[in-house]
Amino acid sequence: MKVAVIMGSINDLEVMKEALEVLKMLEIPYEARVVSAHRTPDFMAEFAKKAEQEFDVIIAGAGGAAHLPGMTAAYTPLPVIGVPIPTKHLGGLDSLLSIVQMPRGTPVATVAIGGAANAAFLAARILGIKYPEVKEKVKKHMAQMRDEVLSKSFLGDFKP
Amino acid sequence: MKVAVIMGSINDLEVMKEALEVLKMLEIPYEARVVSAHRTPDFMAEFAKKAEQEFDVIIAGAGGAAHLPGMTAAYTPLPVIGVPIPTKHLGGLDSLLSIVQMPRGTPVATVAIGGAANAAFLAARILGIKYPEVKEKVKKHMAQMRDEVLSKSFLGDFKP
Amino acid sequence: MKVAVIMGSINDLEVMKEALEVLKMLEIPYEARVVSAHRTPDFMAEFAKKAEQEFDVIIAGAGGAAHLPGMTAAYTPLPVIGVPIPTKHLGGLDSLLSIVQMPRGTPVATVAIGGAANAAFLAARILGIKYPEVKEKVKKHMAQMRDEVLSKSFLGDFKP
Amino acid sequence: MKVAVIMGSINDLEVMKEALEVLKMLEIPYEARVVSAHRTPDFMAEFAKKAEQEFDVIIAGAGGAAHLPGMTAAYTPLPVIGVPIPTKHLGGLDSLLSIVQMPRGTPVATVAIGGAANAAFLAARILGIKYPEVKEKVKKHMAQMRDEVLSKSFLGDFKP
Amino acid sequence: MKVAVIMGSINDLEVMKEALEVLKMLEIPYEARVVSAHRTPDFMAEFAKKAEQEFDVIIAGAGGAAHLPGMTAAYTPLPVIGVPIPTKHLGGLDSLLSIVQMPRGTPVATVAIGGAANAAFLAARILGIKYPEVKEKVKKHMAQMRDEVLSKSFLGDFKP
Amino acid sequence: MKVAVIMGSINDLEVMKEALEVLKMLEIPYEARVVSAHRTPDFMAEFAKKAEQEFDVIIAGAGGAAHLPGMTAAYTPLPVIGVPIPTKHLGGLDSLLSIVQMPRGTPVATVAIGGAANAAFLAARILGIKYPEVKEKVKKHMAQMRDEVLSKSFLGDFKP
Amino acid sequence: MKVAVIMGSINDLEVMKEALEVLKMLEIPYEARVVSAHRTPDFMAEFAKKAEQEFDVIIAGAGGAAHLPGMTAAYTPLPVIGVPIPTKHLGGLDSLLSIVQMPRGTPVATVAIGGAANAAFLAARILGIKYPEVKEKVKKHMAQMRDEVLSKSFLGDFKP
Amino acid sequence: MKVAVIMGSINDLEVMKEALEVLKMLEIPYEARVVSAHRTPDFMAEFAKKAEQEFDVIIAGAGGAAHLPGMTAAYTPLPVIGVPIPTKHLGGLDSLLSIVQMPRGTPVATVAIGGAANAAFLAARILGIKYPEVKEKVKKHMAQMRDEVLSKSFLGDFKP
Repeated sequence: MKVAVIMGSINDLEVMKEALEVLKMLEIPYEARVVSAHRTPDFMAEFAKKAEQEFDVIIAGAGGAAHLPGMTAAYTPLPVIGVPIPTKHLGGLDSLLSIVQMPRGTPVATVAIGGAANAAFLAARILGIKYPEVKEKVKKHMAQMRDEVLSKSFLGDFKP
Repeated sequence: MKVAVIMGSINDLEVMKEALEVLKMLEIPYEARVVSAHRTPDFMAEFAKKAEQEFDVIIAGAGGAAHLPGMTAAYTPLPVIGVPIPTKHLGGLDSLLSIVQMPRGTPVATVAIGGAANAAFLAARILGIKYPEVKEKVKKHMAQMRDEVLSKSFLGDFKP
Repeated sequence: MKVAVIMGSINDLEVMKEALEVLKMLEIPYEARVVSAHRTPDFMAEFAKKAEQEFDVIIAGAGGAAHLPGMTAAYTPLPVIGVPIPTKHLGGLDSLLSIVQMPRGTPVATVAIGGAANAAFLAARILGIKYPEVKEKVKKHMAQMRDEVLSKSFLGDFKP
Repeated sequence: MKVAVIMGSINDLEVMKEALEVLKMLEIPYEARVVSAHRTPDFMAEFAKKAEQEFDVIIAGAGGAAHLPGMTAAYTPLPVIGVPIPTKHLGGLDSLLSIVQMPRGTPVATVAIGGAANAAFLAARILGIKYPEVKEKVKKHMAQMRDEVLSKSFLGDFKP
Repeated sequence: MKVAVIMGSINDLEVMKEALEVLKMLEIPYEARVVSAHRTPDFMAEFAKKAEQEFDVIIAGAGGAAHLPGMTAAYTPLPVIGVPIPTKHLGGLDSLLSIVQMPRGTPVATVAIGGAANAAFLAARILGIKYPEVKEKVKKHMAQMRDEVLSKSFLGDFKP
Repeated sequence: MKVAVIMGSINDLEVMKEALEVLKMLEIPYEARVVSAHRTPDFMAEFAKKAEQEFDVIIAGAGGAAHLPGMTAAYTPLPVIGVPIPTKHLGGLDSLLSIVQMPRGTPVATVAIGGAANAAFLAARILGIKYPEVKEKVKKHMAQMRDEVLSKSFLGDFKP
Repeated sequence: MKVAVIMGSINDLEVMKEALEVLKMLEIPYEARVVSAHRTPDFMAEFAKKAEQEFDVIIAGAGGAAHLPGMTAAYTPLPVIGVPIPTKHLGGLDSLLSIVQMPRGTPVATVAIGGAANAAFLAARILGIKYPEVKEKVKKHMAQMRDEVLSKSFLGDFKP
Repeated sequence: MKVAVIMGSINDLEVMKEALEVLKMLEIPYEARVVSAHRTPDFMAEFAKKAEQEFDVIIAGAGGAAHLPGMTAAYTPLPVIGVPIPTKHLGGLDSLLSIVQMPRGTPVATVAIGGAANAAFLAARILGIKYPEVKEKVKKHMAQMRDEVLSKSFLGDFKP
């Protein structure tokens, strides 16, 4: 069981590190790499083609004209999760549309703009269909989130 | 192995039937249902809570203020794939943002606006990490798509 | 007479506290709570179902794929006022569309992005149809706003 | 008990008639009028100022630079529900923003683009806090919607 | 010859003061006022109705659901110039659409988001059709802008 | 007294003819021409430079990267009214932003997308500051619009 | 001298054929092909790598999450012109942003949504820096466009 | 061999200087100038008409209603590269649409919002079809980018 976490630029790590932290928290093995669709297209192709030998799921973050998630999905039969990196001028709407609007036959499982943590939680849910212990961790985390909210739900009231 | 395909309204079937067709083509068992987050919230909760007993993946299509995929994901540890149904006035941008912009901890694997076919292909990729025969079908479909394009790639040339 | 003010996350309080301040100013009783559609869906359902026993109006703030106002409206016959919480990357356009674009039969009374104060003023207008003293307070506040503008309307002139 | 249904142009009736139909279905008395903020500003002011003598709630539909709902709310302490009329070129996004983005102190309860039916359901929820029989009708309608979906939920399954 | 410069809120002065500065520079008399469509609708109506007795052109700035320019235009036959005030969450796109998308018969001469200076220059061009000395000032200003650019056009070159 | 009505392409006439009809209705002399910023830049420059000799106001319609109104304004001190022509793919949002977002010093009085009729009404308001008979026609038209709405305001009521 | 015209799908030919027609009109040799970034990634890589042996310029059309132009540019030092194909739900805004928002170092020369004809005219301008006869054809075409507009500029006038 | 780098305002230099730096790095001669479409239209026309005598490619940066790139392209048969300058309120979406959405016959090779560096790289690719040494520099730069990414690709892994 292993997740590949790739991103188009070292600058994306600031966003993508949340994915790494969540995977660690859930004790899911990963390997993290910069793989640029535009600067290292051959390496990307090679990496994506071999990915199924080593990985179960790929998380790919990219910004702007974000081609990494979709191109990776074109080279591998693995599920690819796309993380739209926020952009300076358009807030990441460009990244989102470049990742989510994939044509028939080559899907990318897209999460929210800047949603690297959720990419990891989604990877866990996907792994959970094969590895029962990961599914248990997802359920445990869902219960923790619930309990955390419930313990601090009341914020006050007012009676004139 | 079974996929649940749910949608917020019977009107969404026109879009969602493409998911059913792809699942059939890939010989992946499914059950299809109308489950409305807003009109049948209790049934949705019940359905989603029990889903992990019967299903591996859930595909959920909804339009406008599209709450079905995200709410389903709140009730189950299964991977939930969201299909933004196109809308009359905003083209489905509302559906897309309502589905993809999920908060930390509750991811929805979002595909393109109207991308029901890709939801099925994504479900197949997810199932493929557990069921090798499904992975093979994904790879075979990718090869078929490739061959189909290659066989008709040349569109003509012009020499003055 | 009582208003429920709920929000999807404790982080939303920074915006939502304006609603609390306006309710206080208008001497309208309220209870404030964090209720998360995605982290505490069961609690949300339970809270919303019982709401009509205790409350007249519900104000619900949420951001991103904002499902709390719409889901609350699905569980209660009370009027639900939705406050789109501003978001970091899309300015709250995602929150707005996720709240306002509700399907037929389950309306949410949506106010401006970040418009928590107006959610409280709208709650007061709604309560005003039943409680004449609240209506009087709304009218008084409208008159105060008018007088405040009129007293400082003139900003200067210029004659060459 | 009476609802005013006003719209900026006779052309808006095609959308707004859904509000009239829902009010009829719920047996809520109404009066429908064309009131144009831009062509009959004095009549609008007069109508809105007197509205509280006759009406409990105002539903106002307008498109483009849609000023009718907000201006009506400026003249009355009643709750005003705004319906963004779809527009030919921008799909009604202009109408939505012109109606929902009201400044502090003058709220408009905004529903979806083209959401005239929901404006009526929202009016019913508001009236329901004062008139128990209307609240019962809202609950009955919610139950009917639920039953209708449940009775036709199953859409088929597939076993290879 | 006199221009009215009105704005929906004292907070808009930060943007609108540019209009005042340009009018001063062009030696065009003006009177500046806060006139709120939503907080002082009666005063707005009265001001706009009387405007033609004293003013030639009205500049009106407003933000969000910006109704002041359009409503003023509904009450006066004078040309009304609308300035969309930038907004915190949507950058002023809401203000722009609320001002520019006016229905047939009630035009507002809209300038850029935050374009208060240009509102003054436009007012000068309009006045220029009646007052030749203002037209001369516009032409002189256009020549000054040209000369200023031309005097600093060259930014450097590079020869390897 | 004369208005120039120019447009970037003969195809724009379908939209722009509404301006011609309104000018005729108001008995305002005009001359209509195709003047393309991109295909006839020299003719545009020449036309715009001489415009003040013959015209009082220029109405310019253009679509997409709509440069005609702004460039015309760069060559003349006359008030230039810009009409954003609707576009096939973006609804005219591109035309609107290309016309309205002019830099400091070169304003274009922008009307709604497709708002050619309002361009003519705005031209009339501008001419009205110089020609009292045009102002009277504007006031008369405003009264006619008012009367037309008032005569058909009542759309029906319902009493259960 | 030869231009490669590639497109992501045979369905794009309806838009892209305009590029072929313009190239023919300008007597510029071309070869047209379907090359899918997602369905034939290896073929795309191979094609793009060899392109500089045969072609001077590449025109690439693609829609939605349009990766073909940017990926082609990653494999070749040739200038790549990107044509955003209009899309059903978002009008091609997704295609435009996916093509134009390229990261530093890998530019795509983007033309308008659906602007296949202009892609050909841009290719001609690029070729024109090397082949004087192509430059002459561009100039001739510009003159033809000018003359065509000038010959039909006058659309009528009105004198009351 | 020479590139003209023009921009609408001295304020654009902060963005456009990246183009100058890249041209220097690639040892491509350039001349940089402020040329304002709106403040110096005659100078722009004159500059653009003479450009083909001195330059091979023109890079033009402009913001808001950005007319400089398109107008320059109307006066010259050279390839014109447009750089949308980011804007304060709309992030540069206005600049992008004003530059890219050019009508048939007058193309602008548009790069990303704020993409001045890529404008220079695109100029180099265009020059490369005529000057083999520039093509070599483009290839060398592509290889450098590749090597830089590959040398730092690995970001760490995690094994629980």
